[in-house]
Amino acid sequence: MMKFFFLILTLGSFSAQAKLIKKTIEYRDDSNLFEGYLVYDNTIKSPRPGVLVVHNWLGITDETKAKVEAVAALGYVAFAADIYGKGVRPSKAEAGAIAGKFKGDRQLLRSRVNLGLQTLSTQKNVDPKNLAAIGYCFGGTTVIELARSGADIKSVVSFHGGLDSPSPKGGNDIKAKILALAGADDPFQKPEDLLAFQAEMRSSKVDWQMIQYGRAVHSFTEKGAGSDNSKGAAYNESADHRSWQAMKDFLKETL
Amino acid sequence: MMKFFFLILTLGSFSAQAKLIKKTIEYRDDSNLFEGYLVYDNTIKSPRPGVLVVHNWLGITDETKAKVEAVAALGYVAFAADIYGKGVRPSKAEAGAIAGKFKGDRQLLRSRVNLGLQTLSTQKNVDPKNLAAIGYCFGGTTVIELARSGADIKSVVSFHGGLDSPSPKGGNDIKAKILALAGADDPFQKPEDLLAFQAEMRSSKVDWQMIQYGRAVHSFTEKGAGSDNSKGAAYNESADHRSWQAMKDFLKETL
Repeated sequence: MMKFFFLILTLGSFSAQAKLIKKTIEYRDDSNLFEGYLVYDNTIKSPRPGVLVVHNWLGITDETKAKVEAVAALGYVAFAADIYGKGVRPSKAEAGAIAGKFKGDRQLLRSRVNLGLQTLSTQKNVDPKNLAAIGYCFGGTTVIELARSGADIKSVVSFHGGLDSPSPKGGNDIKAKILALAGADDPFQKPEDLLAFQAEMRSSKVDWQMIQYGRAVHSFTEKGAGSDNSKGAAYNESADHRSWQAMKDFLKETL
Repeated sequence: MMKFFFLILTLGSFSAQAKLIKKTIEYRDDSNLFEGYLVYDNTIKSPRPGVLVVHNWLGITDETKAKVEAVAALGYVAFAADIYGKGVRPSKAEAGAIAGKFKGDRQLLRSRVNLGLQTLSTQKNVDPKNLAAIGYCFGGTTVIELARSGADIKSVVSFHGGLDSPSPKGGNDIKAKILALAGADDPFQKPEDLLAFQAEMRSSKVDWQMIQYGRAVHSFTEKGAGSDNSKGAAYNESADHRSWQAMKDFLKETL
């Protein structure tokens, strides 16, 4: 029985992956042009849940696109929001300054991520009542800000995102259920920020969960981060697989 | 595709549940008699992974037995260890003193839980190289002690168990992978105990994870605990389902 069940699952993933449609999508605000990345499985014709994917500090990279495709292979319409703007794809040397500009201006960050959400929700094969958002590092911070902005979405998953907030009452407008995934040895997540985040969620009565992965540091889902924990950021295969499974369970529960 | 997949799963669970074998098992040490509860699905004939289940402060109850049956329905040989001894089934008024005796004598606790593990591992349909342990409240403390004792098991899941240790270097002998599941509002889990546990796991280089469930207090998996969070212990349906899913994923990964 067990083996039969796995076989069905495998065939399901394969047939879905074989029919992924991948599109670059341009969208605008009053003064800027953005370029997102939309992926979905063309075999299902009725509107289905949409999942926004928010990139790390480097903007939309091939690694971001691979995540979007993996989410689409689960049966969702997946869309990478472009927070920075079309063509703004910083090097590692430049990324800190650009990410820092947005982290320092949460209103700007919220407006950019909400524009991405709106772009996803108006795709013709998306059920706009059934949306979620996931994000990595900078994007993990961004999707929590999306929730704090009061966005009408079911759930948010933050992968090794900074959880600090400049406005400690920010949680009061949250409608989404929150799953925060953290490396327990991440030197960029200060214990006081984790505790402040938990206090914010608690006082706002948010439906939240946090998973801490032992022996994992920052960027644990990102293969490009290398394997040296002493650098503070490193890929961790086990934490990558576990956090992906936790995300799948949570999206299945909430969408 | 998705609907077909769920149908298969449902049929699978039903057929497994229909063939559960349930046995009371007596076992001994030099001076005491114990009565455990063994459940397995009789349809699979080859040795399979064994999962030890450790009861809460009340000893083996109908609620414990239901958990054992649910674990067996996943395809494992499940066995409730009897930590207290045959017939020792305290009332709530008596339970604190008995649980306290064992929590205060970790060597005794370790010897009792290892005896239960040995009883499971020598069942003829169990693969003794492929064992895990789960436990609730007092049992959640007990399975961590089992790991600290150096038991040769793959994994341990502690549901709202106390994580404190009288010997802070206790983690050095741990071979098992650890998953600790905690109510984020559990008043019986002091923040300093959580931090000490994390420090112990970290310094011992254990493969560990911790999940905190927002809005959940102590005993969140136990329907008998009522629904009033202000009492410090209460059932929480969402945290119950989520923690069960996390356990299933972890057992599938490690066994």
